[in-house]
Amino acid sequence: MAAKDIYHNHVRIALEKDGWTITDDPLRLKWRGRNMLIDLAAEKVLLAEKGARRIAVEVKSFIGASEMDDLYNAVGQFIMYRKALRRVEPDRELYLAVRQDVYRELFDDPSEDSLHHEDGVNLVIFDPNTREIVLWIPQKTS
Amino acid sequence: MAAKDIYHNHVRIALEKDGWTITDDPLRLKWRGRNMLIDLAAEKVLLAEKGARRIAVEVKSFIGASEMDDLYNAVGQFIMYRKALRRVEPDRELYLAVRQDVYRELFDDPSEDSLHHEDGVNLVIFDPNTREIVLWIPQKTS
Repeated sequence: MAAKDIYHNHVRIALEKDGWTITDDPLRLKWRGRNMLIDLAAEKVLLAEKGARRIAVEVKSFIGASEMDDLYNAVGQFIMYRKALRRVEPDRELYLAVRQDVYRELFDDPSEDSLHHEDGVNLVIFDPNTREIVLWIPQKTS
Repeated sequence: MAAKDIYHNHVRIALEKDGWTITDDPLRLKWRGRNMLIDLAAEKVLLAEKGARRIAVEVKSFIGASEMDDLYNAVGQFIMYRKALRRVEPDRELYLAVRQDVYRELFDDPSEDSLHHEDGVNLVIFDPNTREIVLWIPQKTS
């Protein structure tokens, strides 16, 4: 199994442990008539539900040769997926799933201009060893 | 000359024809201690001035195998470059430079949730044949 599919699977397991039901894996999003996930390089998107809450999760593996390129790709995909998702399901929130070590290296940022605060990039951080979710940003209250 | 360097040069010429002075080519941006433009794949950023106005221009060639991947990369770079630029020069506006045909295919979007309206992605559209700027979004009044 390719490394990116392994992480995809970890996130799926972690969400299920956290009480979420996976409802569609992967989601097919379209933008201007184009399949947004047609490329092998594109990360898949998970759909999950827990009670009345519905989320979409973009799993980003960060296994490319350059972490900055992976970051640009993750952020660009997030912005475009969010745009496409709002058109079809405006109530479903999009999250970007990253490993704990990637979060610490690239995303852990309390400043006002962080990707979360300034650009609305929601994060779900998972531990690939325990296959558990360790943090939601913004924090989930239930 | 690599295709992406040709387009970079076209934009430089087009800005000069439009009365801009190129002041730094390329700009070196840092983020969390990392050089944001260290990779060969990364597009260079032009700095230009016209009177009191100062801009930075991310030239994006869209010559990759997948236009969606190029789009994710362009948008992700724009978001991250803007973040880094605001920290060092908050008054300088960032623009994404794309060819006319790429604009029509991927960016020409009057809707409320366009990349320009919703995500603040400013565009400068150039004609690679005449090496002239054909459109600024938002429109420049002088």
